[in-house]
Amino acid sequence: MGLAVFLSLCGRLKRLPRSGWLIGGVGRAAAESIADHVSRTVLITSLFCDLINSGQEYSVDCEKALKMALLHDLPEVYTSDMGKETTQYIGLEARRRAEEKALKDLLAMLPRNLQDDYWAILAEFRSQKSVESQLVRVADKLEVVLQALEYEKAGYLHGLTKGMLEELDGAAKVCDNQHVNDVIRDVKENFGIATVEEK
Amino acid sequence: MGLAVFLSLCGRLKRLPRSGWLIGGVGRAAAESIADHVSRTVLITSLFCDLINSGQEYSVDCEKALKMALLHDLPEVYTSDMGKETTQYIGLEARRRAEEKALKDLLAMLPRNLQDDYWAILAEFRSQKSVESQLVRVADKLEVVLQALEYEKAGYLHGLTKGMLEELDGAAKVCDNQHVNDVIRDVKENFGIATVEEK
Amino acid sequence: MGLAVFLSLCGRLKRLPRSGWLIGGVGRAAAESIADHVSRTVLITSLFCDLINSGQEYSVDCEKALKMALLHDLPEVYTSDMGKETTQYIGLEARRRAEEKALKDLLAMLPRNLQDDYWAILAEFRSQKSVESQLVRVADKLEVVLQALEYEKAGYLHGLTKGMLEELDGAAKVCDNQHVNDVIRDVKENFGIATVEEK
Amino acid sequence: MGLAVFLSLCGRLKRLPRSGWLIGGVGRAAAESIADHVSRTVLITSLFCDLINSGQEYSVDCEKALKMALLHDLPEVYTSDMGKETTQYIGLEARRRAEEKALKDLLAMLPRNLQDDYWAILAEFRSQKSVESQLVRVADKLEVVLQALEYEKAGYLHGLTKGMLEELDGAAKVCDNQHVNDVIRDVKENFGIATVEEK
Amino acid sequence: MGLAVFLSLCGRLKRLPRSGWLIGGVGRAAAESIADHVSRTVLITSLFCDLINSGQEYSVDCEKALKMALLHDLPEVYTSDMGKETTQYIGLEARRRAEEKALKDLLAMLPRNLQDDYWAILAEFRSQKSVESQLVRVADKLEVVLQALEYEKAGYLHGLTKGMLEELDGAAKVCDNQHVNDVIRDVKENFGIATVEEK
Amino acid sequence: MGLAVFLSLCGRLKRLPRSGWLIGGVGRAAAESIADHVSRTVLITSLFCDLINSGQEYSVDCEKALKMALLHDLPEVYTSDMGKETTQYIGLEARRRAEEKALKDLLAMLPRNLQDDYWAILAEFRSQKSVESQLVRVADKLEVVLQALEYEKAGYLHGLTKGMLEELDGAAKVCDNQHVNDVIRDVKENFGIATVEEK
Repeated sequence: MGLAVFLSLCGRLKRLPRSGWLIGGVGRAAAESIADHVSRTVLITSLFCDLINSGQEYSVDCEKALKMALLHDLPEVYTSDMGKETTQYIGLEARRRAEEKALKDLLAMLPRNLQDDYWAILAEFRSQKSVESQLVRVADKLEVVLQALEYEKAGYLHGLTKGMLEELDGAAKVCDNQHVNDVIRDVKENFGIATVEEK
Repeated sequence: MGLAVFLSLCGRLKRLPRSGWLIGGVGRAAAESIADHVSRTVLITSLFCDLINSGQEYSVDCEKALKMALLHDLPEVYTSDMGKETTQYIGLEARRRAEEKALKDLLAMLPRNLQDDYWAILAEFRSQKSVESQLVRVADKLEVVLQALEYEKAGYLHGLTKGMLEELDGAAKVCDNQHVNDVIRDVKENFGIATVEEK
Repeated sequence: MGLAVFLSLCGRLKRLPRSGWLIGGVGRAAAESIADHVSRTVLITSLFCDLINSGQEYSVDCEKALKMALLHDLPEVYTSDMGKETTQYIGLEARRRAEEKALKDLLAMLPRNLQDDYWAILAEFRSQKSVESQLVRVADKLEVVLQALEYEKAGYLHGLTKGMLEELDGAAKVCDNQHVNDVIRDVKENFGIATVEEK
Repeated sequence: MGLAVFLSLCGRLKRLPRSGWLIGGVGRAAAESIADHVSRTVLITSLFCDLINSGQEYSVDCEKALKMALLHDLPEVYTSDMGKETTQYIGLEARRRAEEKALKDLLAMLPRNLQDDYWAILAEFRSQKSVESQLVRVADKLEVVLQALEYEKAGYLHGLTKGMLEELDGAAKVCDNQHVNDVIRDVKENFGIATVEEK
Repeated sequence: MGLAVFLSLCGRLKRLPRSGWLIGGVGRAAAESIADHVSRTVLITSLFCDLINSGQEYSVDCEKALKMALLHDLPEVYTSDMGKETTQYIGLEARRRAEEKALKDLLAMLPRNLQDDYWAILAEFRSQKSVESQLVRVADKLEVVLQALEYEKAGYLHGLTKGMLEELDGAAKVCDNQHVNDVIRDVKENFGIATVEEK
Repeated sequence: MGLAVFLSLCGRLKRLPRSGWLIGGVGRAAAESIADHVSRTVLITSLFCDLINSGQEYSVDCEKALKMALLHDLPEVYTSDMGKETTQYIGLEARRRAEEKALKDLLAMLPRNLQDDYWAILAEFRSQKSVESQLVRVADKLEVVLQALEYEKAGYLHGLTKGMLEELDGAAKVCDNQHVNDVIRDVKENFGIATVEEK
């Protein structure tokens, strides 16, 4: 099995920084790791799913959503966290292809059925059609906003950018879920950010 | 809702170190955060569950296991990561009571149904009776061993201790699952650690 | 002798952070160590004693006070620096018992007469009855306020909390010493903090 | 002029790490910055040029070589330091195109004549035909080897890889210069690395 | 040859911090290294030279200026970066003599002709008579101002001091070059600092 | 009073690193601060004094020794921690003069009687004639050895140098005290360092 190698490689996500904060001047020891970010993204995803499933209007596949959140940055083991500008210069498509190749190679270390399952879960995430994929994307963007607010609270200036809020609002609009929107509203109110009404 | 406050408090898990490494001399900027550890523990849990469920001998509740892995260190938002000796001096029971109170206060920020669900999930984890709780405990211990091996690989001496291996083996013995044991064996072989046969 | 082991264990105080700053977002490489804090607490204690002893109204046992300041966080070698919330959840009494046990085990590495002397000095510190113990407690609280102000000066927000000032003022009130109060007043004026008159 | 913006953006090279060391476990505060690497690459380049020009067999354009060394990582202001695997997955060509676009945008902030000069210098570096471009490439590779050896000297394991030595030897072979080879030989002997004879 | 030892010693410039930032509270992992500072000083020097040489009123020896910028902090391999107050207490003359001795010992590791050349270049830099030496000194001071502004932008207070601006303006006045002054003006305008007219 | 300013300036000792470790490659976030070093030096001093005073052959002035240990690096607030080579180039006498001037200026912030007392205590330390001054010097050197051993234990190579042991043995020889020698012997045996018999 290549599981030991796979798990060990995943340790890189703890050592690789989320580069946006570094570029912004947060300081190399204060900048969170990719694993840090994944951790709370999974947590937010769990909250979203459980709020929705409690609501009982309809239900989402929580296990699948949790795995999307858990694995969506897996390729960064090889491609690291490419900041906004790096992605612009590489090109979003080129970045996606690179991440797909990296993902393929990483999953190849797993037993075949797990490869297929994880590949399918992440393909679904990429296509952004299912509610699970959409709420995970919101979780991802909300996590960034929370972190930016925490850096600002600690004294770093301009942690939170207009772009981050726009990405969050954009993802929330696509997801179009009342429970998800309630959480976002709560965050914005708690931190004093003007709320844009989502339908 | 207290969700914004809850999510923001969870950001502490990124800033609080896993203290064992600090004590061992890994260096304050190289020591992983609690969130780093949770991240890979959830990943290992996912692998365990999916290997077991693929095997189709029986099935485990993956969603529940993922949530156990995700939330089991949640109280550390308030109680931080107490190292081995600190726990000895505080006393394991006193530590558990503290973590339960902290957990209660944290979950109180969530809607009632989520509180109850998460409390139940973590109570099940603490009782270590179900296969889900047991495999999550193995995931937790295996994650520590992997991290210790990575620190050793980077040059830190005595990252991996006899105690860590004993805890892993002990948890694996209780779990007594072939798929879980296969992963552990793979890790030990990959890193050149003598394997103790688990029944 | 266990002195070598004792001295080596004390090296942990350099590696363990003062966790409050970490939680507040100061950054893992900017957060001071327990040893850093002890260093200036001993210095403040020396100043307090020498100011009092110069005043010649009465005299304090400076050697004893210095040892109190030097040793009062010694148990943290094993129990680390428990932040405010951790202490609340563990319980102040449970924390004190843990620190006493840790202290006992640490002092047991020393020759018997030193064990007894240091134990007595720290028991006196804990009982907070003597002027030496009280002025050391003020030194401890003043040191925190100074550090908070320095973090704020560097740009970290909310370094200094109302609670820190209340603890300082509370300790100063118990100590009720003119020289000690003069130093506190000087710090508050220098940093632009409103002074509360102590009787 | 966009010089102020240009110079400020170049400050990022101090904040962005050379990612290979991070991945290898060097620790986020011990890993050098891109600017750190450029600094010594320029120094090595100067030594190479001055040794060659002293030799008086022929002469190299030292000013041009220094500028190549100084500017060759300039695009990383936007594209950051892509590690070996990231480059594999992005593709060397895609990476080069990205770096060219980033370079173009950065140079566009400078007065027109400087744009043209720097663009020409870096185009010459990329084509690796002139002796200046070849010796700068050796300087770049030698710098990595030196840094790896220093990390190993400090206790990090496997700092120096076979690949790093191969890249150095490969670049040296193309450059085929006696003075350059003397320096490499001196480094290898000093650090106890087996020397491969270059013609 | 002592080139290997020389190059390895120069690696210290990456590990030694620019102490002013540390003293000011920037945080040990966010404080730039001496090599970081040299890197951008060389870049600014290159821009100055190329702007002047493009202007074609007269020309400066760019290669010499680049080497001045590259080597001017070389002695700090042995003497490290002495902050403002340290220099005051050591005495500027004593510091200069120490740096000259250190420089001599470092250059002694190089082939004789390089020793002489580099010694001459740095002697010229020290005497501050030639336009090359003067513009490198401006580059040095401008680099500090840029870094201070970046720290302020990230949230550190009082990064930029009146003294830093005075040193920059003073060096610019001596250099008295229109192109150099244009760059300084652009920086000040870009960052909102009041400009003092230079003649 | 200048006490507030004095105490605040002393905070620098927490931010300034002990530069030897940095130069040796320990990593900027793992290198201890001057305050860290002072902390354990005071502790070792206390142990030395109490061991001697328990022995009751003669007695040492513990309060004075503790203050020597506490204050002996005070000038480094202004002069920082000058490494071995820096001291060689500056010259030991020039360094001492600088430290005396810095000390004078720092103590000038204190009430007059404290100035005189502290100046006398440190003059006595510098003259190295009294047993208190000699045992504090041993404490200082032993502290370095302990820290070097701890860095080695964590995986840093060559933490402990021959020079460090020679300085320790030299200081111990001058001090020529059985209790002090017993502690040194215990450290050497504990860490497996060959002991040189002191008379």
